[in-house]
Amino acid sequence: MIKLAIDCFGGDYSPDANIDGSLSALSKKPDLCLVLLGDEKIIKSKLEGRTYDSSRIEIINAPEVIGCDEKPTDVIRLKRNSSMMMAMRLLRDEDDIDGMVSNGSTGALVAGALVRVGCLEGVIRPAFCPLLPTMAGGIVGVCDSGANVEVTPAYLQQFAIMSSLYLENVYDVPKPRIALLNVGKEPEKGDEIRKEAYKLLSETECVNFVGNMESRDLLSGKYDAVVCDGFSGNVLVKTTEGTALELLKKVKRDIYSKSLYKFGALFMKRMFAEEKAFMNYQNYGGSVLLGTSKVVVKGHGSSKPVAFEKCIEQAYKMIASDLDKKIENEVLKYNYDEKD
Amino acid sequence: MIKLAIDCFGGDYSPDANIDGSLSALSKKPDLCLVLLGDEKIIKSKLEGRTYDSSRIEIINAPEVIGCDEKPTDVIRLKRNSSMMMAMRLLRDEDDIDGMVSNGSTGALVAGALVRVGCLEGVIRPAFCPLLPTMAGGIVGVCDSGANVEVTPAYLQQFAIMSSLYLENVYDVPKPRIALLNVGKEPEKGDEIRKEAYKLLSETECVNFVGNMESRDLLSGKYDAVVCDGFSGNVLVKTTEGTALELLKKVKRDIYSKSLYKFGALFMKRMFAEEKAFMNYQNYGGSVLLGTSKVVVKGHGSSKPVAFEKCIEQAYKMIASDLDKKIENEVLKYNYDEKD
Repeated sequence: MIKLAIDCFGGDYSPDANIDGSLSALSKKPDLCLVLLGDEKIIKSKLEGRTYDSSRIEIINAPEVIGCDEKPTDVIRLKRNSSMMMAMRLLRDEDDIDGMVSNGSTGALVAGALVRVGCLEGVIRPAFCPLLPTMAGGIVGVCDSGANVEVTPAYLQQFAIMSSLYLENVYDVPKPRIALLNVGKEPEKGDEIRKEAYKLLSETECVNFVGNMESRDLLSGKYDAVVCDGFSGNVLVKTTEGTALELLKKVKRDIYSKSLYKFGALFMKRMFAEEKAFMNYQNYGGSVLLGTSKVVVKGHGSSKPVAFEKCIEQAYKMIASDLDKKIENEVLKYNYDEKD
Repeated sequence: MIKLAIDCFGGDYSPDANIDGSLSALSKKPDLCLVLLGDEKIIKSKLEGRTYDSSRIEIINAPEVIGCDEKPTDVIRLKRNSSMMMAMRLLRDEDDIDGMVSNGSTGALVAGALVRVGCLEGVIRPAFCPLLPTMAGGIVGVCDSGANVEVTPAYLQQFAIMSSLYLENVYDVPKPRIALLNVGKEPEKGDEIRKEAYKLLSETECVNFVGNMESRDLLSGKYDAVVCDGFSGNVLVKTTEGTALELLKKVKRDIYSKSLYKFGALFMKRMFAEEKAFMNYQNYGGSVLLGTSKVVVKGHGSSKPVAFEKCIEQAYKMIASDLDKKIENEVLKYNYDEKD
């Protein structure tokens, strides 16, 4: 049995999207158990009249709600009975809970994961690893995309090890090609952190390090994951999403500007729908947090049921593939000082 | 008279694109003089049979060629007679030369500008400020996009002052809206540098600081320029270009995959051509280096004649608007310690 804590009250479409996604995942995985956290009354009323295996669902009342603008540190201290923080405590206290999924505040999730859940043995810091679609039809991971604004070369080495194992075990990518995000391809590019990380990665046997990557090549299909500090990783992911969305919006506006274009677009409706689906992050699951002692998956704030279900699937696969043990095994082969 | 040194031997299409762009600019600006640098014989042969005002063109022989993979420091030391380095020396030594345009190696250009040309009084470091098109039909500057991999809050303040004056004076943008690139909108987001920079920018009277910007909003039209360290600025610009190009390529490929789409696209040919032109950086000029004691404009390595001409126009406008004096005036109002 794989048992997940589900934060039902986070995200723009919660609790409906979260509950619908949960029930859908439950119906597909016979060995999945879910603990739904949030306002018990509301959850129960939403489940009324639905068909599901009630022996694999538990509800735990978590009455407090986290506001949009609350500081992560305040959430940990003051919102102990929110669905997110109670899920974290379950992870810490209950051996049979394997992981959690939440669409809530990223900052609170990272802070809570560090304070309440902790890291795998040997892991210095957890890191986000969202996936983007490549133009070659595959996926590419970005690790870290925002959990660590500042990094050291040792962090980057661990991000490489963790994202490589993640892609190999959860997405069946053989020998994932891992790159270092930099301002140029040559090994001597970037600041001291990048130069040292380049050397360190070249010497990391379990990682198929393919050198520096310039950000314009992210979607080229030449890389399976890129490692970076959380600041530039955040810029990388959000710029990609932002540019694609803005461009699609512009094309749509331009089509509506002339009847000739509108006529032509009639024949291409399906294609445009496919392009839109292709760039829709909802189809690629959440941003998993790699390196925590139990699995934590962060869904996008605007996740609809399908996106939420994908997050549950990701958590399920991470647990089923024993990713945590594999990460520990590799990471513990390297010595990291306090200063790292 | 405005006199510019032109590096004729840099870029994928040099010297033809550089010379063609130069002659075109010369024909449009009667008070423009150009000093063409490069292999004298080749330049002369390319000019043969062309119509231009020869009294406003000078040729200086610069026989050495810079290789693609040469280190910037080696270029400065060993390629003193390359067209780029000779242009730099002209800027330094000749009072009547107001600026230069080059498509050559970015690293060599920055290193050369620092060592040979130097900064305006009060400016700590020069910064690149390329422009991108926004979806609202305007432009947005990114400062710095790669000259300074690491920054301090004081650097970021100067980037804000310089890019604001640049947009106001060269592109007639009234009260440019300047943002700080960050991982979230709230003032307390990011590392210590970002937090301090936020405060400093809020107190900078001559800058219309509008707060933090998330990278997904770069093209939204809500900002006229964004300031950032050169590492994430580089990621920002290259990701935007890369995503747009990859997406347009994908749309093209998809259109050709089905005859129905091909048929529909017949009616939209013009629109697709416009989208392509819209995202083509060649139409937005070069990446000007702000803060150097004389004007330095870096064109894209793949500049064609039109793009090269735009770079000359940018240099011309920067000089004609006395941007250098305006930058010095503002920057000297603030005290920068050695440690900045």
